[in-house]
This record gives sequence, C-alpha cells and structure tokens, in this order.
Amino acid sequence: RAMKLCVIAGDGIGREVVPQALRVLQALLPALQVVEAEAGWDTFCQQGTALPAATLAAARDCGAVIFGAVSSPAHKVAGYRSPIVQLRRELGCHANLRPTLSLPGCGADGIDLLIVRENTEDLYIGEEQSDGDTATAIKRITRAASQRVAQSAYQLALAEGRQRLTIVHKANILPLTDGLFRDVARQVAAAYPQLQVDELLVDTAALKLAQAPQAFDVLLAPNLYGDILSDLAAAFGGGLGVAASLNLGEHAAIAEPVHGSAPDIAGQGIANPVASLLSLAMLLRHWWQQPALAARLEQAVRATLAAGTRTPDLGGSASTAAYCDAVIGRL
Amino acid sequence: RAMKLCVIAGDGIGREVVPQALRVLQALLPALQVVEAEAGWDTFCQQGTALPAATLAAARDCGAVIFGAVSSPAHKVAGYRSPIVQLRRELGCHANLRPTLSLPGCGADGIDLLIVRENTEDLYIGEEQSDGDTATAIKRITRAASQRVAQSAYQLALAEGRQRLTIVHKANILPLTDGLFRDVARQVAAAYPQLQVDELLVDTAALKLAQAPQAFDVLLAPNLYGDILSDLAAAFGGGLGVAASLNLGEHAAIAEPVHGSAPDIAGQGIANPVASLLSLAMLLRHWWQQPALAARLEQAVRATLAAGTRTPDLGGSASTAAYCDAVIGRL
Ligand SMILES: CC(C)[C@H](C(=O)O)[C@@H](O)C(=O)O
Ligand SMILES: CC(C)[C@H](C(=O)O)[C@@H](O)C(=O)O
Repeated sequence: RAMKLCVIAGDGIGREVVPQALRVLQALLPALQVVEAEAGWDTFCQQGTALPAATLAAARDCGAVIFGAVSSPAHKVAGYRSPIVQLRRELGCHANLRPTLSLPGCGADGIDLLIVRENTEDLYIGEEQSDGDTATAIKRITRAASQRVAQSAYQLALAEGRQRLTIVHKANILPLTDGLFRDVARQVAAAYPQLQVDELLVDTAALKLAQAPQAFDVLLAPNLYGDILSDLAAAFGGGLGVAASLNLGEHAAIAEPVHGSAPDIAGQGIANPVASLLSLAMLLRHWWQQPALAARLEQAVRATLAAGTRTPDLGGSASTAAYCDAVIGRL
Repeated sequence: RAMKLCVIAGDGIGREVVPQALRVLQALLPALQVVEAEAGWDTFCQQGTALPAATLAAARDCGAVIFGAVSSPAHKVAGYRSPIVQLRRELGCHANLRPTLSLPGCGADGIDLLIVRENTEDLYIGEEQSDGDTATAIKRITRAASQRVAQSAYQLALAEGRQRLTIVHKANILPLTDGLFRDVARQVAAAYPQLQVDELLVDTAALKLAQAPQAFDVLLAPNLYGDILSDLAAAFGGGLGVAASLNLGEHAAIAEPVHGSAPDIAGQGIANPVASLLSLAMLLRHWWQQPALAARLEQAVRATLAAGTRTPDLGGSASTAAYCDAVIGRL
C-alpha cells in the first residue's frame, strides 16, 4: 500500500494535534508522502461545503487519512453535512475500531477492550423529515453491512489474540433492525468457534461497562450505540485526550482522534496529541501492516506518559509540541 | 386520588420483590386497596398477550400501578409486544423519572441526579419493517411529546429545588428529530429562568456521567438515550438492585424498578427489594402527594442499609423478606 497520507487537520485543536502528531510519524517514516486537504466548519464557511471534492479525491487517492476534528453548527444549516460521517461512507470505511486501554497513570488499570462500531448506516444515514411538529428519522440496518463489520470484528479479535466478543443491541425493542444486526453477528460467529460470543442489551452494556470495564474484551455494536459506548469507555481510559480510533475499510483507512475541536482550549497549544498519535499507530498496524513501527510508536507514547510528560488534561504542564518532542526522543 | 394500587408482579424476581415491597407499603398505608393483575412472558404463553385487556383496565381504573419486571423473548415472537412499553403509552405516562442518588454504603458518594426520560415515542413506537436483508425502524419525535416531558422536567426540577438541567440529544447527526427535541426543550426553558439550562450530545453525556456523576443535576432525554443513560447512572448508585423509577402522566403513574426479571437469581428469595421500595416512595410523593409518607419510607430504606442489612447484590446476606421486615421495623 502506498506510503501516502492525506492530512485533514480540520478545525480547532485538530489544527494543533494533527501537525504535531504528523511530525512524530515522519520521524518514524521519513519517506512518507503527505497531502494536505481541507474539511470542516471553516471550510464550509469559505467554500459552501464541509468536504470539498478535492479533499475527497485526495483521501481516495492516498487511502490512508488522518482526520483531526471539526466543529459543527449547533443548528441545522442548509447544505452542511458532517464531513467525517460523509468520509466514512464515501471511503467505505465500514468498521470503526475504538480501543480503550490503560495507559500509564491515566484512568483505571487493567482495561484492554476494543469497540468495533458499524460505520455506515443505522441512524447515521441522514434520512430525516419534519413538518415542524413531527419529525422522523430512519434507522437502517442491512444484512450486508452487519456481515461486513461482524467479519472484521471477529478477524481482528483473532488477530489480536482476544477471547470474547459481546454483541450489543436493543432487540427487545427493535427486533427487526437490531435483531437483524444481532442475528447476523451470531451467524458470522459460527465461523469463529475459537471466540466466546455473547450479547448484551445496550442499556445493560452501558451499566456493565461502567461497573467493570476490565471485564470486556471486544464489543460489536451498531453505529449509534458504538458512538455512545466508545465515549463512555474513554472515561475509564484517561478521557478523550487519549482516545484513538481507526475507520477501516478495504480501500481506505481514516485515523481519527475521538475528541472534538474543543474550542475552549483551541489556540493555546496545549491539546493532548496522544489520541492522534495512537490513531496513527493503528493506521501503521492495520493499514500499512507495519506492526513493528506501530509498537515502537505506542511504546514511545507510553514511556513518555510514564516519565510524567503530560498535557494539562492529564494533570501535566507539557505543551502539545513538547509532548511530541519527548515522544520523538523515545522512538 | 384514589388510594388504589394495581399490582403487576410480572415474571422472575418481579414476583418476589413486588409482594415484599407491597407488604412494606401496606404497613404505611393500611387502607390501601390492592388489585392484582397479570402481565409478562408467562402471561403471553398462557393467554397469547403479554398485557391482557383486564390488566390494562385495572391499571387505568386504579391510576397507580406497580410493575415488577417481565421476561422478554430473545427473538421476535409474533404478537408479543413489551407490556411495560405498552402500558407507558396506553396510560399516557409521558415522563419517566429515574433518579440516582447515593445510598448508605452503595456506589459512589455525593450523587443526586434525576434523569427525566421521554416515555412515549422515539424508537419505541414499534414501527419497523424488514425484507430480511434491509430493516428499518422509525424514530419519531414530536413537538407535543417533547413539550410535555420538558414541562414535567422543569416543574419537577423546581419542586425539588434543583438548579441545573441538561438537555441530551444527538442533533449534530439528527438535526430534525433530536434538533426538535432540543429546540422545544430550550423554548420551554424560557419560562423557568430560575434554572440553568445547558445541553450535551448523548455520547459526551455518557462520558461525563462516567467521569463525574456528582456534577449532574437533572438530565432531560429522548426515550432511548434516557434508557441507556439511566442504566449507566445506576452503576454509580449501587446498581440495578436499588434503581427506582416512576412513569408519570396526568391520569396514571407506574412505579417500576429498573431491573429486569433476573432469571439467574429468581426463585431464591434474595432479590433486592430496594428498587421497588424507592419506586413506591416516588409513587407516594408524586402521585398520591404524600411527601411525608414518602420520606418515611425512604428514611427507613436508608437506615436499614446503613445498619448493614442488605441483600447479596450489595454484599449482604439478607433475604428479600428479611430486608423488608427490617424496613417495616424502622418505618
Ligand atoms: C462528530 C460526530 C459526527 C462523531 C460521530 O457521532 O460519529 C463523533 O461523535 C465520533 O464519535 O466520531
Ligand atoms: C425492558 C425494556 C423494554 C425497558 C426499556 O427499554 O424501556 C427497560 O430497559 C427499562 O429501562 O425500563
């Protein structure tokens, strides 16, 4: 796969963490070709679209993308659609991998879970209507997308030597949609007898995650539940400043820190780059198939945290740049 | 309002906690008239409906209901619909009040939050279709239901001397449906300038609840988010064994322990009756307008826990009946 990366910093702290994390990646991969592209709220204000065609083309061409963060309007704005949701669908990144694991001195100990979130449908298809008094949205679940994400989840679980996979749904209320997701995930499971597969209602999953995040291994969830549960899990892994994700498909992968554009701290140079760094490590491992480089990067991130170099969200006083300098020194 | 209670024990531990909790209520209210009615999976198997017409009629007639717990089938069964979801809608219980508060020796300290969950629409309307490969469900949000539940939430917040209310939604992805809920909740807020009103995306709300449940006061949420967040909050309040709720409308109120039928422990007489007792206390306060009796019951529940009498889910060894005996002794 081409050693080309499409860099979409976006808005707010996306513009701070992405360039800094990129500096670290370039130290590991000096031959990496970088293509910068625009997306987000500022882009929308300037160009009338939050995801210009040139950005989509660059992302498609590179295959590998890092997407920082974008601001979104508080109310419906004609023509605005979330660029990350569009990118996930357009690039066919059907699985969103969201790990939570204990990092030195962050969050709780003993956590090593992976949420695999379906990334292309559910309530995210943007099919809504309203007459001002009654509004409806369509939640769509297909056999094809459920199969695809389930297969990715089981394969990843095996590749990572994991033991157990929990299917998350609300089939007691949504027997046809969530029931389809659950049934397909169960059927696909038959091909992976090595894995222990169980299921939880999404409400129960939230409760159990909060009670004992250590007890989970892989969770497989439809889009919206995956969104909620991955933020929840992040609370136990050191917060959004360190929450990494990879949107993975056959033709593209998007590394995406889970955090938003954080206007409250943007411009100060103190945003935590760990989420971006760990997302890039996932890109190295799962897209470029460079597990050794991924491990080197992860090790340097951990060692830097362990040495006490941290940004303010983790109680430290390092700037984004200083943290990245320290990581480069440990690569 | 009539001092009449329709008692629906349901399945599993519903049949254990409800009769025991009722014994406590009768000690407080000797004149209470009790009408027993059936619902749930066993009822469905015997009568072909999980909510017989006679049960609905009894519930309507009494106004006040306690609903224990019911088992639901793992897969779609023709003719089966969740009886609690039906009851909520049929009785017009538009607001589901789900408090989490710190109890002696249970969960975290300093928590006193109330989730007000819209109770009649959203993805709970049961409008689903499937051709086997593609399934869709309708999420419906109306101005009327949003207004009604928002009004209840603000009024309750004021009545309880609360300061802050957080509207939960996902309007960045669902600008028309969740946007309507959010906008209506904001409009209704204008009539309550005493309250500080803010809003959170549901994923962020899950994260922040897990990080600092103490920081929340009232949360107002559409049906499904309310379902997920209330289970999550329960994790910090001592678990489902103590999680109480009240489904409140103009013509009826249903006290409902949040837990399920718990087949794993059913039949042993060890289920925790605290959730049912605190749900009955909510019925006393909000339906029968008996705040003094409600407070007496709550105090007795707390004092019994503080004295170390607890069921096994809280690390004790008391049976359901022994716990209730101890509460009666403290009324
Ligand atoms: C920004 C938003 C559209 C996005 C989502 O809901 O997927 C975010 O919450 C995430 O988790 O990546
Ligand atoms: C049993 C189920 C239908 C119900 C719901 O989803 O409302 C339960 O989870 C609850 O929270 O009361």
